Amino acid sequence: MTTAYETLLEKVHELTDLEKATGVLSWDKETNMPPKGITARIDQMGTLQRLSHTLFTSDEMGERLENAAAELGDADYDSDEASLVRYLRRAYGDARKLTTDYVVRSNQISGQAREAWMKARANNEFATFQPWLEQVVVLCQELASMYGYDDEPYDALLDKFETGTKTAEVRAIFDAVKAELVPLRQAIEERGTAVSDDILHQSYDIDSQKAFARYAAEALGYDFERGHLGTVVHPFATSFSRDDARITTRWYPDFLSPSLFGTLHESGHAMYEQGTHPSLYRTPLARGTSLGIHESQSRMMENIVGRSRGFWQAHFPKLQATFPDQLGSVTAEQFYRAVNKTQPSYIRVEADELTYNFHIILRFDLEQAMLNGDLAVKDLPTAWNDKMQTLLGVVPPTDTLGCLQDPHWTRPGFGYFPTYALGNLYAAQFYETAVSQNPTIASQMAAGQTEALVAWLRQNIHQHGRKFTPRELIQRVTDSPLSHTAFMRYATAKFSDIYGL
Amino acid sequence: MTTAYETLLEKVHELTDLEKATGVLSWDKETNMPPKGITARIDQMGTLQRLSHTLFTSDEMGERLENAAAELGDADYDSDEASLVRYLRRAYGDARKLTTDYVVRSNQISGQAREAWMKARANNEFATFQPWLEQVVVLCQELASMYGYDDEPYDALLDKFETGTKTAEVRAIFDAVKAELVPLRQAIEERGTAVSDDILHQSYDIDSQKAFARYAAEALGYDFERGHLGTVVHPFATSFSRDDARITTRWYPDFLSPSLFGTLHESGHAMYEQGTHPSLYRTPLARGTSLGIHESQSRMMENIVGRSRGFWQAHFPKLQATFPDQLGSVTAEQFYRAVNKTQPSYIRVEADELTYNFHIILRFDLEQAMLNGDLAVKDLPTAWNDKMQTLLGVVPPTDTLGCLQDPHWTRPGFGYFPTYALGNLYAAQFYETAVSQNPTIASQMAAGQTEALVAWLRQNIHQHGRKFTPRELIQRVTDSPLSHTAFMRYATAKFSDIYGL
Repeated sequence: MTTAYETLLEKVHELTDLEKATGVLSWDKETNMPPKGITARIDQMGTLQRLSHTLFTSDEMGERLENAAAELGDADYDSDEASLVRYLRRAYGDARKLTTDYVVRSNQISGQAREAWMKARANNEFATFQPWLEQVVVLCQELASMYGYDDEPYDALLDKFETGTKTAEVRAIFDAVKAELVPLRQAIEERGTAVSDDILHQSYDIDSQKAFARYAAEALGYDFERGHLGTVVHPFATSFSRDDARITTRWYPDFLSPSLFGTLHESGHAMYEQGTHPSLYRTPLARGTSLGIHESQSRMMENIVGRSRGFWQAHFPKLQATFPDQLGSVTAEQFYRAVNKTQPSYIRVEADELTYNFHIILRFDLEQAMLNGDLAVKDLPTAWNDKMQTLLGVVPPTDTLGCLQDPHWTRPGFGYFPTYALGNLYAAQFYETAVSQNPTIASQMAAGQTEALVAWLRQNIHQHGRKFTPRELIQRVTDSPLSHTAFMRYATAKFSDIYGL
Repeated sequence: MTTAYETLLEKVHELTDLEKATGVLSWDKETNMPPKGITARIDQMGTLQRLSHTLFTSDEMGERLENAAAELGDADYDSDEASLVRYLRRAYGDARKLTTDYVVRSNQISGQAREAWMKARANNEFATFQPWLEQVVVLCQELASMYGYDDEPYDALLDKFETGTKTAEVRAIFDAVKAELVPLRQAIEERGTAVSDDILHQSYDIDSQKAFARYAAEALGYDFERGHLGTVVHPFATSFSRDDARITTRWYPDFLSPSLFGTLHESGHAMYEQGTHPSLYRTPLARGTSLGIHESQSRMMENIVGRSRGFWQAHFPKLQATFPDQLGSVTAEQFYRAVNKTQPSYIRVEADELTYNFHIILRFDLEQAMLNGDLAVKDLPTAWNDKMQTLLGVVPPTDTLGCLQDPHWTRPGFGYFPTYALGNLYAAQFYETAVSQNPTIASQMAAGQTEALVAWLRQNIHQHGRKFTPRELIQRVTDSPLSHTAFMRYATAKFSDIYGL
């Protein structure tokens, strides 16, 4: 006899397959599709998404879900079954709140807003984008109303990226980061230690970069038998199952860092997906639980591991052998310092491990102000530059290098940005706990090895996929809610050493 | 007000998108998917195919189709609308005849038969494959019964690959080919002119091969703005729209021909899809009309163009510059002769332009004999070797080099093989007509140029997609049914010249 849960699972498998198929089409679009294939691809992806949305939001799906819930009764909270039903109830409720009219309108506005943004950025002309951003803000406001919230509108949006996390919590944490990071950055400036990254800006053959990036990703623990490295303009990671979790990189012929550390970053994302438990196969639980936790895994591999002294003492000889002309006379220590240079800059995606957080705090503040009506869109450029001055001490000479730099605001996706900085904080808190629970992790790391760390991540984080919300996960794993303290301890120790504070 | 035809079209777009999405997943499986991604990929493709089959065979689809047919009345036979309804009625009727039980069983048997075949081929042990081939023959017999036929069972199967073409017609044409090709081959043997292809068997750098293959494909008229060249183990062409028609190639480091002519072959397939009329977008008509006509386009580009003297007189200098060490002292004429060497051999996919047809005639005969119960599967190896002796004058020393060489018989796909040889015949008949209608084609070809030929193909064949059956098309285009005579004129002239008959 088929149980109600099995009946639910049948639909879940179908929906997961549709979602993953859309993912393959999207990956192919970015990696292999010829330029003129775009029209048909948009139609194909639209059809899959429409089918998927119709199936998921049907009354029949709701019945299957409630029947399964009734059958499970008070099953163990941690079980796959209870976790899946819990997740689906939340997702089903959210999906049913979105009206078709809204989705259609939102896609239309976003498409046109993106065109306008590209033009505005190219011409350094904020006015071109302004009316579209105004519409996007209205879409965000509508979204917050549709989803509903208890305390403040931003909660409704943030919740979609970081389930259960409140704006007020994030604000308090970011305030604490700011209170400690500003003085740390000032101390570095005042100390005036020279750290040069000139060696990274040389001519680096791209095929050799690729070969080394593969080597480094494997050194972290990324499994190429269950992965693939593609070339794209805007790098990302994506997975079609735990056994097919891919990474992508953009290659620069005259700058080593972005491709190398980009690959390590995306490897961290993909390793999370590769580590989900096999029992979650073909369900929406077989994914990272939130953008913030996902970013913690990529940041851990990019920064805590990939920019550590141990990693480069172990692997720099290989890099040196790959690029003898460029790095033959450089020491591992010099390289380590070069890849950890900190300096205020205009562009978020090029920012270092410390200043990156200020770029996020700025966006978090401005999103709330626009959403709440405290900041008119027309005043955004001024507000942006004021905040840059306060937080980073530099003011971008143009809006292209300022408030027009990111594509995120072409969509009603307020609430996405803060997850980037939350990722840094989660990463440090997880890592501190990992080392305290298993000292081998630290000794391996000093030798550039990650087996023990990856095993710990798999056991404590990866295998669970989306079973727990980020708040639940950080509490379970570190016995404490998210805080800024671990990150500040990590950052202060590392940069005090490098800059001789 | 929405017309019945528009209501039909809405469903057709959805179904086409699903089919193309499945195609993208399949292409990705062959080109980029990591080995362990296979389990999830099979599930994902299975879900898309099941959704598609369910939607297409629904009563609702039948109603939409008949409502549209009624609305159209006696619309112009050549119109997109009448052609689509005509095509869909045929496809709908066929799809409704297939029982779910049959599809499930057929997929199961085919999967296991493929495993057994791989083992049998590796171990040169026909007995391992025999029981599975027996089941595949039964599946073919069931299929013929389900589809139904007037004259003989093979008709029902052939019709699925070459709509409206009868076994008796093909038999008569193949007999005529045989009657003329055997003496031509004998004359070549007796004349004894030495043609060597040793120059093709040297070390050829793969990146340079790729660059030249791209150049050659573009020289034919393949549009890379609407295409992509991927690397695979078993080459094929596929399209996701006329603006995204891809080719694939396998690269050999020490043999120039397979990759180069394979690329030209697949380019011919893809150019057919690139040439379908834009008005057929998102319908099943935006594809080649049959396997045989499709093969005529690939064979035309591979052989009639790609193995012509004019093509190599024009493009050999470029190839020579790419490979100065290997081809520096070779003339264009020597190269032209080398790529046209004819010699009996065991393996179909390695056969030359003349002997290839014998390999197909052999399989066509044996398929009918097995289907009709005139040949027991256990006697296949003997029957195979006897026919090889008769047609080609050579007998494979092992079954691995004989009846176990192709994967086709792991599926109930009898009727597929003959389309390969039909492609050669269609190609020659089309080409003869093209040249007679536009003499510029011949003069351009003598200079290695294809613009006029491609324009003619586009106008007369490509743009129609699947609007006409192969019988209708050859009659419309050449004012005559398919015959062997154009091919024999072409082959006799070309090989008499090369071999000095």
